[in-house]
Amino acid sequence: MNLTDEQKAEIETARTARFETVRPTVPALEAMMFNPLPVLDHGFVRVVDYMGDDAAVVQAARVSYGKGTRKTTEDDGLIRYLMRHHHSTPFEMCEIKYHIKLPIFVARQWIRHRTANVNEYSARYSIMDKDVYIPEAAKLATQSADNRQGRGDVLNAETAARVLQLLRDDAEQTYNHYEEMLDENGIGLARELARMNLTLNTYTQWYWKTDLHNLFHFLRLRADAHAQYEIRVYAEAMLETVKAWVPASYAAFCDYRLGAVTFSARMMDVLKKRLAGEAVDQSASGLSKREWSEMMAALGTGPLTTK
Amino acid sequence: MNLTDEQKAEIETARTARFETVRPTVPALEAMMFNPLPVLDHGFVRVVDYMGDDAAVVQAARVSYGKGTRKTTEDDGLIRYLMRHHHSTPFEMCEIKYHIKLPIFVARQWIRHRTANVNEYSARYSIMDKDVYIPEAAKLATQSADNRQGRGDVLNAETAARVLQLLRDDAEQTYNHYEEMLDENGIGLARELARMNLTLNTYTQWYWKTDLHNLFHFLRLRADAHAQYEIRVYAEAMLETVKAWVPASYAAFCDYRLGAVTFSARMMDVLKKRLAGEAVDQSASGLSKREWSEMMAALGTGPLTTK
Amino acid sequence: MNLTDEQKAEIETARTARFETVRPTVPALEAMMFNPLPVLDHGFVRVVDYMGDDAAVVQAARVSYGKGTRKTTEDDGLIRYLMRHHHSTPFEMCEIKYHIKLPIFVARQWIRHRTANVNEYSARYSIMDKDVYIPEAAKLATQSADNRQGRGDVLNAETAARVLQLLRDDAEQTYNHYEEMLDENGIGLARELARMNLTLNTYTQWYWKTDLHNLFHFLRLRADAHAQYEIRVYAEAMLETVKAWVPASYAAFCDYRLGAVTFSARMMDVLKKRLAGEAVDQSASGLSKREWSEMMAALGTGPLTTK
Amino acid sequence: MNLTDEQKAEIETARTARFETVRPTVPALEAMMFNPLPVLDHGFVRVVDYMGDDAAVVQAARVSYGKGTRKTTEDDGLIRYLMRHHHSTPFEMCEIKYHIKLPIFVARQWIRHRTANVNEYSARYSIMDKDVYIPEAAKLATQSADNRQGRGDVLNAETAARVLQLLRDDAEQTYNHYEEMLDENGIGLARELARMNLTLNTYTQWYWKTDLHNLFHFLRLRADAHAQYEIRVYAEAMLETVKAWVPASYAAFCDYRLGAVTFSARMMDVLKKRLAGEAVDQSASGLSKREWSEMMAALGTGPLTTK
Repeated sequence: MNLTDEQKAEIETARTARFETVRPTVPALEAMMFNPLPVLDHGFVRVVDYMGDDAAVVQAARVSYGKGTRKTTEDDGLIRYLMRHHHSTPFEMCEIKYHIKLPIFVARQWIRHRTANVNEYSARYSIMDKDVYIPEAAKLATQSADNRQGRGDVLNAETAARVLQLLRDDAEQTYNHYEEMLDENGIGLARELARMNLTLNTYTQWYWKTDLHNLFHFLRLRADAHAQYEIRVYAEAMLETVKAWVPASYAAFCDYRLGAVTFSARMMDVLKKRLAGEAVDQSASGLSKREWSEMMAALGTGPLTTK
Repeated sequence: MNLTDEQKAEIETARTARFETVRPTVPALEAMMFNPLPVLDHGFVRVVDYMGDDAAVVQAARVSYGKGTRKTTEDDGLIRYLMRHHHSTPFEMCEIKYHIKLPIFVARQWIRHRTANVNEYSARYSIMDKDVYIPEAAKLATQSADNRQGRGDVLNAETAARVLQLLRDDAEQTYNHYEEMLDENGIGLARELARMNLTLNTYTQWYWKTDLHNLFHFLRLRADAHAQYEIRVYAEAMLETVKAWVPASYAAFCDYRLGAVTFSARMMDVLKKRLAGEAVDQSASGLSKREWSEMMAALGTGPLTTK
Repeated sequence: MNLTDEQKAEIETARTARFETVRPTVPALEAMMFNPLPVLDHGFVRVVDYMGDDAAVVQAARVSYGKGTRKTTEDDGLIRYLMRHHHSTPFEMCEIKYHIKLPIFVARQWIRHRTANVNEYSARYSIMDKDVYIPEAAKLATQSADNRQGRGDVLNAETAARVLQLLRDDAEQTYNHYEEMLDENGIGLARELARMNLTLNTYTQWYWKTDLHNLFHFLRLRADAHAQYEIRVYAEAMLETVKAWVPASYAAFCDYRLGAVTFSARMMDVLKKRLAGEAVDQSASGLSKREWSEMMAALGTGPLTTK
Repeated sequence: MNLTDEQKAEIETARTARFETVRPTVPALEAMMFNPLPVLDHGFVRVVDYMGDDAAVVQAARVSYGKGTRKTTEDDGLIRYLMRHHHSTPFEMCEIKYHIKLPIFVARQWIRHRTANVNEYSARYSIMDKDVYIPEAAKLATQSADNRQGRGDVLNAETAARVLQLLRDDAEQTYNHYEEMLDENGIGLARELARMNLTLNTYTQWYWKTDLHNLFHFLRLRADAHAQYEIRVYAEAMLETVKAWVPASYAAFCDYRLGAVTFSARMMDVLKKRLAGEAVDQSASGLSKREWSEMMAALGTGPLTTK
């Protein structure tokens, strides 16, 4: 993270201000607010505002006049019930706003989540900072042999060095040319044109605001092991903020979404047979090889795989 | 409004609590929070939470690290610029949540605004209150002769009395039968079935949450003179809350939306000719009679109409 | 269904027209088009337009220049893969439009699905038909004792007769008063006001258009055994149209959604222990009684429950 | 446009197929289907499917059983009425699907229109083509002096040549390194990583589907003179397809949106005074200088500007 002194001072000012409110307030999240959580080499996630808490979920589900909460165990039970049965609207009653700095190729994946509000730093209007994502060598891997959209083995040191050299030099050169084209005492090209010379690992920034239901949807997909590493680390940082903000909803989310497994109708047939003591192998299961291995992975290396 | 003592106490508890926060806070709106603003005979609107303020609009537009505000006049100018040029995303960075009690036929119009979060009191799960909207006599009017979806003259006293009698008696009878069907010591019919006997003026309630941009869109349509009276009064109550919450955005909204007039390309031709001193009447204008009268109404009864 | 002769003739005209197109076309769905499928006593669902087919899902997933399809087995495999991994955007590339007649209380549940386009018959503008939903006696049931939003036992004949009497008489009376208030030679009340006297089982109509992904989401929730009977029958009629339209996507939907079961992280622990031959009962499972019984129901009354 | 022979053959096959349908069909649009309309140096827009026509707008507005159309003049009048009064839902009943090839920096603007369905060519899964947008020299302009997000004067020949040289060389080099990193017999870097070295003028492709109302919204903003040239040319190509598809809706759109002008409440005061023969200049108008000049521009160089 390359924050200027001015930016650091602005953040400090925001963090030390104190206001009085009648609104639901979450001290654990207040303590994290405005502070950038570092992600990748120059990126960050920081909470800049929020609305609601676990009690607001309960309150909306009950359409109540006051807080709507009862005993903690009852409220937790209700939150778990809502999550389990996909009653999503009460979770939509909480809202959070982040300021995020992220590489453009990550931003392009991210923006496909349409149910959110976004204000991005405008490269038509402003000049982009010279911040470019260069991966750690340990994260450079070959194309996966068996997953067309994944990574395989980590590159050896020499090959990794070559990749890093290419990425660094090309980013340096294209950014320098970007600056040359923009130079008001030189070419003075319009910003909306000059930006096209930047590479996709250039960092951008945005304000991104969403409700808790849609945030959970985002996190389930992006904190998943199949998500690209460079977006997953953002999801992981955000999970920490959600845990501080709405601990009961977060726990229900972990149980019913992050850690849950869905079995298809065909998989359920296999499962029922197995539980009844019947041996079933892939060829008799009606499942493709890939589905079979996905199912076995979900169940762990148990008795099913050995038959 | 028929609030129970318990409901009043819950509201009072919420109003008198005080929490400390680092979030943007609007004292003028805090002072209104939780308090029901009466609408129609038994309805209300009350603010139950909010996120952001005028400065948050500016902050998002600038994707800034701190508050992002400069001089008040600069910030106001930016807000006016954003509103004028339909740069809607910064206004989406503010969010507000209402608890609303409203007749079902109003709720059915309201819900067509899709970009909002809603939790409605469930008549599958709970028993509906015996609250029914009965209009004031002064609001009972005939079908408009020239507008197929509007009202004309107010009914005379005798006819109005007949209408009120019918509405009251039918609401009373259908609700009593609803209760009879629900009675656990009698028929015990499922709630999801019994509810079908209620009339459309029965009150329902919901939590309704939306961002400032979509709220403005709602208010522009529903605070309009062509909106049905029974939804317009809700929009008017909400306008008061918006004025307290984001005064600069509200002022820009009044100027560029509520009080603005759009002229079609054909109307612009008429307008330019008139400003050049040329006489144009409806037959030569290319406008239909209705469009012509809409245009004249927008311009006031001025020189255009007398030529 | 009470169709007028004029309506029948209009439908017949549409059904017998023939046009030439280069667009993807599905003969099995063409054969069903415009024809109302009866639902409840006066309701219906009829397909009035559609866009795309199974091949359009494949084509979009491949962003191809032509049809994008290969061997049927490859295409089916891709569709199954997309469904299994929640790659929903290719399914959004198919669109369908229905004309639906349904009771207002059903319409109020339905409209909560926001990602669809709707044009409803306007009771501000037009006079509502005298069509009211009266359930069959066999569908009248008590409030469920163990599910706060469900039905229990069917009413006995005498009690059912009383309920039907109440529903019929109240609907008859409120509709007659609606007509009396509207009478242009009598009271002449504005339509937007008179409508409030109608009961919630009055039928309304709308055009409803959505994409295949969102339709599947609707059908998964509304064709579910926990959905209210009166909306489930609409979902079932629509399932028939989807089966004719996109058979491969429909089959994947049945396997991975309708017939699938999701186990929470805690349930997975139980499952793995059981598969390893370990006995686990509810008290040791970490599951609530309700979750335990939901899990046992999903697995069938097998060896797990007897231990 | 660089289409391969295989791609051309696929398009030709699609264009010459003929199917029979009972659906609304628009011969003028059928004749354009599948054919790529060239945009910029390597981009295109082509219609790959559509649903509905002008009559479908009318039919939905009337919630009719048959075509719902009456005399052409009545239908046109209804369409104009709907457009004028922002009754947008009937226009949502028509849907269109495009296959579009466009530079990534244009795609990043485009995707901010959230109410659409998108399937983009995946650079995690596939290798990007070597197609890069290089502007024509005549389109290279300086940063605008008075509009922070616009262009000013065209560059002189020598400066333009330098810019084109930089853009070409950097695109060539970064793409070559992209290929080197991907090479399966060399580095074999994962595609999801290698793509980050590409510049923002690299072409991508997507299937993009939206309804007519949202398409009009997109076109109003992107066919506007203030939109960046590189996205405006796509909007202009799409306007041609809309004109062929729904001529009556298109005409209403041109009159009430593209050619329309909105005056703020303050501007209306100025206008009314002027029409009453009163002289008003900027200083007395309550308008900022920028607003005043926007208003004068909208009215043309008439008597107002000379006072």
